[in-house]
Amino acid sequence: MDLDKIFNPKSVAVIGVSENPNKIGSVIFRTLTKLFKGESYQVNKNHDFLYGKVCYPSITDLVKETKHKPELVVIAVPVNEALKVLEESGKLGIKNCIMVTAGFKEIGNNSAENKLQQIIKKRKINMIGPNCLGVLNTSNNLDTLFLPPERLQRPKKGNISFISQSGAVGSAVVDLAASQNLGFSKFVSYGNAANIDESDLLEFLEKDDDTHVICMYLEGVHNGERFFEVAKRVAKKKPVIAIKGGLSDGGKKATLSHTGSLAGNASVYEGIFKQTGILEAHSLEEVFDYAKIFSFIKNNTHGRNVQIITNGGGYGILAADAVEQYGLSLTQLETKSVTALQKKFPSLVTVSNPLDLVGDANNERYEIAIETCLEDKNVDMLLVIILSQTPLIDLDIVPIIERLSKSTKKPIISVTTGGAYSHELKEMLESVGIPCYDFPHNAVNAMKELVDFAKK
Amino acid sequence: MDLDKIFNPKSVAVIGVSENPNKIGSVIFRTLTKLFKGESYQVNKNHDFLYGKVCYPSITDLVKETKHKPELVVIAVPVNEALKVLEESGKLGIKNCIMVTAGFKEIGNNSAENKLQQIIKKRKINMIGPNCLGVLNTSNNLDTLFLPPERLQRPKKGNISFISQSGAVGSAVVDLAASQNLGFSKFVSYGNAANIDESDLLEFLEKDDDTHVICMYLEGVHNGERFFEVAKRVAKKKPVIAIKGGLSDGGKKATLSHTGSLAGNASVYEGIFKQTGILEAHSLEEVFDYAKIFSFIKNNTHGRNVQIITNGGGYGILAADAVEQYGLSLTQLETKSVTALQKKFPSLVTVSNPLDLVGDANNERYEIAIETCLEDKNVDMLLVIILSQTPLIDLDIVPIIERLSKSTKKPIISVTTGGAYSHELKEMLESVGIPCYDFPHNAVNAMKELVDFAKK
Repeated sequence: MDLDKIFNPKSVAVIGVSENPNKIGSVIFRTLTKLFKGESYQVNKNHDFLYGKVCYPSITDLVKETKHKPELVVIAVPVNEALKVLEESGKLGIKNCIMVTAGFKEIGNNSAENKLQQIIKKRKINMIGPNCLGVLNTSNNLDTLFLPPERLQRPKKGNISFISQSGAVGSAVVDLAASQNLGFSKFVSYGNAANIDESDLLEFLEKDDDTHVICMYLEGVHNGERFFEVAKRVAKKKPVIAIKGGLSDGGKKATLSHTGSLAGNASVYEGIFKQTGILEAHSLEEVFDYAKIFSFIKNNTHGRNVQIITNGGGYGILAADAVEQYGLSLTQLETKSVTALQKKFPSLVTVSNPLDLVGDANNERYEIAIETCLEDKNVDMLLVIILSQTPLIDLDIVPIIERLSKSTKKPIISVTTGGAYSHELKEMLESVGIPCYDFPHNAVNAMKELVDFAKK
Repeated sequence: MDLDKIFNPKSVAVIGVSENPNKIGSVIFRTLTKLFKGESYQVNKNHDFLYGKVCYPSITDLVKETKHKPELVVIAVPVNEALKVLEESGKLGIKNCIMVTAGFKEIGNNSAENKLQQIIKKRKINMIGPNCLGVLNTSNNLDTLFLPPERLQRPKKGNISFISQSGAVGSAVVDLAASQNLGFSKFVSYGNAANIDESDLLEFLEKDDDTHVICMYLEGVHNGERFFEVAKRVAKKKPVIAIKGGLSDGGKKATLSHTGSLAGNASVYEGIFKQTGILEAHSLEEVFDYAKIFSFIKNNTHGRNVQIITNGGGYGILAADAVEQYGLSLTQLETKSVTALQKKFPSLVTVSNPLDLVGDANNERYEIAIETCLEDKNVDMLLVIILSQTPLIDLDIVPIIERLSKSTKKPIISVTTGGAYSHELKEMLESVGIPCYDFPHNAVNAMKELVDFAKK
């Protein structure tokens, strides 16, 4: 299945634009005309002109008048009309569709679902949906998310792609990611998956050069055998992080009325994830934490020996506990590193792991510590905790860490906790490519995934 | 041991104020003179006047000249001098001390440690520290934290108190809490605990009416038997949330050089926490999540039957999974509630648990759902997920939930995820007393603690 025109169409027609600017079709069209790097058209029976552009009474009229077949049609009209438009588009030879409309099998409307399937088959259509938000592609600004930007911030261009069966999960996470400055390549909410399903999307992202990390929110898998085969192949090349909704009995029941999915057994999914190499997240926060580390850290040929550097003793201890809990290893520095550091540091600094630079640590002490640890052959990864409550640390530490991180292939992961100043530090660290977590626990949990992925 | 004068002294003398405004003693004194609702004095040999106030050459001179014995002395000078000042203060009959100075048993300086113990015994002194940040009390603005407010935001007055053996853990968490608008009553970083230890502090907070929730970061316990007895008593009256640093071998080793603590065995601590009724947190984030729910929800006589209300299907499903994972129960609404809701809602809304109000839910739909569920006798607690990406929900939902929450004793916990608008919603919800979490997982984890505490 070729999904290229779903994500990279040269032209898009939106069906369901109305004079009410807040209607779904209108929001989609208005967003598209603003930023999409292609042609956009609208269909409306009652108006000749809306939102600064010509309207066409039907998709047939559009094709006739413009002498152009849009490469993608986005349908946001009620079920019965949606089916008619899909048939009409198919007849015109338009092969790619995003069906936003809801009211199919998720509410038990099997006759509509059957008709939908018949049209898709007969007209050989590639369709996302129904019952979905559709697609966001940051490289061409194709954006069918019918949620206004003042409510759902669009993320900057980046290397994370997110496949979500649930529109709400997808949009909330994208909004949060945007506010935290994480970069996305593609986001797709695919709803009932009547045609294009998670396996097709995975396969598409496998070949998408802009996508380095794939996140998935799944409720059900539509073709288990194919999913297994595709996932196994893709998860070898790119980290695939998945969270499964409906692992409990209560959750399972709810997936049926949500996306019409049969949620299946929790242990079956766990098995599939393990065997295919998909990295399973157990909460949305984990999806976030994992996506972040893979988005920042490109090099994945590293071992599990972690050196912790901190200016807060308690933080170092909690990080050490997490390293052990998550099955990573607290490394022991080479003797020459220990000697070198002891010479340079005051006696209150115990050169060990964690390496506690103590409360009066300044930027320079960090520089010495990081540089020496990066050169140590016993160190595979650095966890650098920087608590900015003490005034001897300041934002000038960021270019220091940036320089050191560029001189090494060893991943550097950072942690900082606190209020305004700490947030500024975090943003600056991430702007120079150092992933930064709020707590040691989240950082180490993500580092463990990095190692697990590299092992494959 | 009476700790009242440690937290509520009428007058404080700071030893170690210098002409350098960034020295520890100077920062402490400058902060104190600004906001402390009592008298503050400073000792400096070389100056008569600093920071707009008179200096006294010694604590003895201070007492002689002012004819007043400060109720609390804060010592921030190097070890040997610190011991002399403590002896001198003790001789003058000053019984309460915060010893900020480091360099005792945590670096193996046993002779200093022994001298310290001798003076404490001989002079019958109550001492916090050494090697600590000391005390923050939001009710009188006693504040010995030597970290400047532009780096460590002070929290607003509230009902959480936090006992931390580690200064860094304490200050980072307090800074974060302040930025998230959580209210604190007391914070104490008690370092090596040469005299006043975690049991004494627990006992003090037991009787402190301003403290409703007690959080602890522990590295070691100084008198196991006494701790067990005190904790068991206190944890029956107030929720006590503890995180133990040094549960792993690596972490354990580090506690010795940090606060001179013998970390002890992980399973021993787990046992102590379980048997005393202390709520054990496994990450700082959990400390946060747990503290928040107890800080907001005062009523603790409730069962484990949760009704989920959501406008995002996937979020409802993930919340349902979490409810089952954490051993709470997804309740079934009474028939009369189901009938009433079905009448009022469009057919796309499946009245079940989770109750998915679907993507076009508005404030009114939430109002009907919350009101009906609160009246339902099968519901003990409500988890209300509000995803604000959809424009039909707006901030006017907050007074609605506020009104409903005041009409009930059933806890209402909320979740919202996203960027700027979602943050605003979260802040507003919390300002009217509704705790709000970023993800269902964190909310349900905290709700489980609420139920566990109420069971006791």
